[in-house]
Amino acid sequence: MKHHIDGSPLESDFEIKMETLSLSVEPGSKDVIVKNLYVSIDPYQLNRMKTYSSSQTAVSFSGSLTPGLAIDTYGVGRVLTSGNPNFEKDDLVVGLISWGEYSILKEGVILNKLDPMGFPLSHHVGVLGFSGLTAYGGFFNVCKPKKGEKVFVSAASGSVGNLVGQYAKLFGCYVVGCAGSRKKVDMLKDKLGFDDAFNYREETDLNSALKRYFPDGIDIYFDNVGAEMLEAAVSNMNTFGRVAVCGVISEYTDSGKRAAPHMLDVVYKRITIQGFLAADHMAVYADFITTTTDHLRTGKMQALEDVSIGLESVPSAFAGLFRGDNVGKKIVQVGEE
Amino acid sequence: MKHHIDGSPLESDFEIKMETLSLSVEPGSKDVIVKNLYVSIDPYQLNRMKTYSSSQTAVSFSGSLTPGLAIDTYGVGRVLTSGNPNFEKDDLVVGLISWGEYSILKEGVILNKLDPMGFPLSHHVGVLGFSGLTAYGGFFNVCKPKKGEKVFVSAASGSVGNLVGQYAKLFGCYVVGCAGSRKKVDMLKDKLGFDDAFNYREETDLNSALKRYFPDGIDIYFDNVGAEMLEAAVSNMNTFGRVAVCGVISEYTDSGKRAAPHMLDVVYKRITIQGFLAADHMAVYADFITTTTDHLRTGKMQALEDVSIGLESVPSAFAGLFRGDNVGKKIVQVGEE
Repeated sequence: MKHHIDGSPLESDFEIKMETLSLSVEPGSKDVIVKNLYVSIDPYQLNRMKTYSSSQTAVSFSGSLTPGLAIDTYGVGRVLTSGNPNFEKDDLVVGLISWGEYSILKEGVILNKLDPMGFPLSHHVGVLGFSGLTAYGGFFNVCKPKKGEKVFVSAASGSVGNLVGQYAKLFGCYVVGCAGSRKKVDMLKDKLGFDDAFNYREETDLNSALKRYFPDGIDIYFDNVGAEMLEAAVSNMNTFGRVAVCGVISEYTDSGKRAAPHMLDVVYKRITIQGFLAADHMAVYADFITTTTDHLRTGKMQALEDVSIGLESVPSAFAGLFRGDNVGKKIVQVGEE
Repeated sequence: MKHHIDGSPLESDFEIKMETLSLSVEPGSKDVIVKNLYVSIDPYQLNRMKTYSSSQTAVSFSGSLTPGLAIDTYGVGRVLTSGNPNFEKDDLVVGLISWGEYSILKEGVILNKLDPMGFPLSHHVGVLGFSGLTAYGGFFNVCKPKKGEKVFVSAASGSVGNLVGQYAKLFGCYVVGCAGSRKKVDMLKDKLGFDDAFNYREETDLNSALKRYFPDGIDIYFDNVGAEMLEAAVSNMNTFGRVAVCGVISEYTDSGKRAAPHMLDVVYKRITIQGFLAADHMAVYADFITTTTDHLRTGKMQALEDVSIGLESVPSAFAGLFRGDNVGKKIVQVGEE
């Protein structure tokens, strides 16, 4: 990152820096040197790139980034050298590595040994990683679904949205997703089993669109985008409806953009709007892994991944998130397994 | 009500109609004829007076009113004649009577015998009636307070707000209220024991005002007003903060008025915004009555009532709610006990 970024990110906001790295750990140090393999590309990183004044909460809670320094990210790698007795050379690890080819991880940084359980390593960045936990914790703990309820998911072909839709279907809900292209919409219906889906770019009135797709109203809205879509969803909600606010991509690139849901709807329909972070739902981590690995093995769930190759593709992969380029979880493979 | 009302109500929007009433019940009818004594004057009634097109949810959920017909309201009365075996002449009753001197209540209308338990009858319209249950259920069930938490209440001298503040103080929270005049602010601090209070009309920047009154942030916001106050409260909330949306008086008179809270705050601070109605909290009714009568008897709680006399004062009492005329629960005594 060359400088702080307050609007939509461009490839040119980033540069690849080279420096010489010693592959040996200093005596007495507990550093772990990791060769990065797969790194996660997530929209929330943009909140860390902002100037503090533009969005204080987002910057402070997500951890601000300093221009010129490596950007830490969730990802999978392999240990090259370890001064830490918990890790050995060639261990597979998952945790906070970086958008780079190698990471030097100080003691205390989140890093865990990874058992791939027979799944591709990339799955551990997405469907079995934080995106998966976000979808699982958000849907089951925050939305508290009941079988047969009507669920609406925005950014439904994104890293979290596609999984929420799949969990909701497997749980017995009626699920409609929206996405930004015809191709994505077809995929949601044909490949992921959504009951229906629509391209929001083709709709002039989101309120009417939702009325069309949910003639009996929405019980659960899993919100990844905020703004007009949240307003329209609240207008179309049933009594005791729940909105899980996972992301607000409309506000990430435009801090002036706001959702103004009709609060009379919120009162009379007793709607709950709740923000959450995956980290609050570690209590269901074991359930999440058991359930999700089962569904993947039996073919009931699909891991939708959009993998680019090579560190040099990180800037366009990241900028592309905000143009809707990705289909499913965006991952960059930065090293050969 | 002469016609539907879509903005702020005026006295001239109403008229008193006279008609001859038979005080005997037809043989076989289960009608109950009640002499009305105290009637509740509540802001939500305005939602019932709107044209359907202006606010469909509010109008449908609150039950639309027809111009020219009596307006039903929560209140206390005395039975004059009864065809219903559950009620006898001279019984005190509480339920859905009307803004009028007499009510003829058909079978099925909400009506219960009232045991005044030694309290003034007006208390059963306010602190021991639906206003009290709204405050109690909203604060304890929706806000889920913990001792020591910081609570902000808007419209804090209103029928519900003043009780929320008192419950919160007695429970062990730190409570700040806002109201629309210096006199109300003094009363909150001096008479009701609020830790602090401010006049929102004297503040040019609500965000800074709340930062000043809550240097350590807000844990619970009991919202009666919506709009800019909700936005400012969300900006000043702590992590896992809760907003109970009880009323949106700013939207009652201006359907174009909206609150646009910063959803990035909602996500990163994991804020819950929840609308509710008192009717959802009947499960705590017995607790509410026991707790509140105890507090009233020991003088720990005050019943703040603003009583006008005579049916002819109903229009100005109602219109005055939207000008902030009332201090505490607005009640009209329409008949002599």
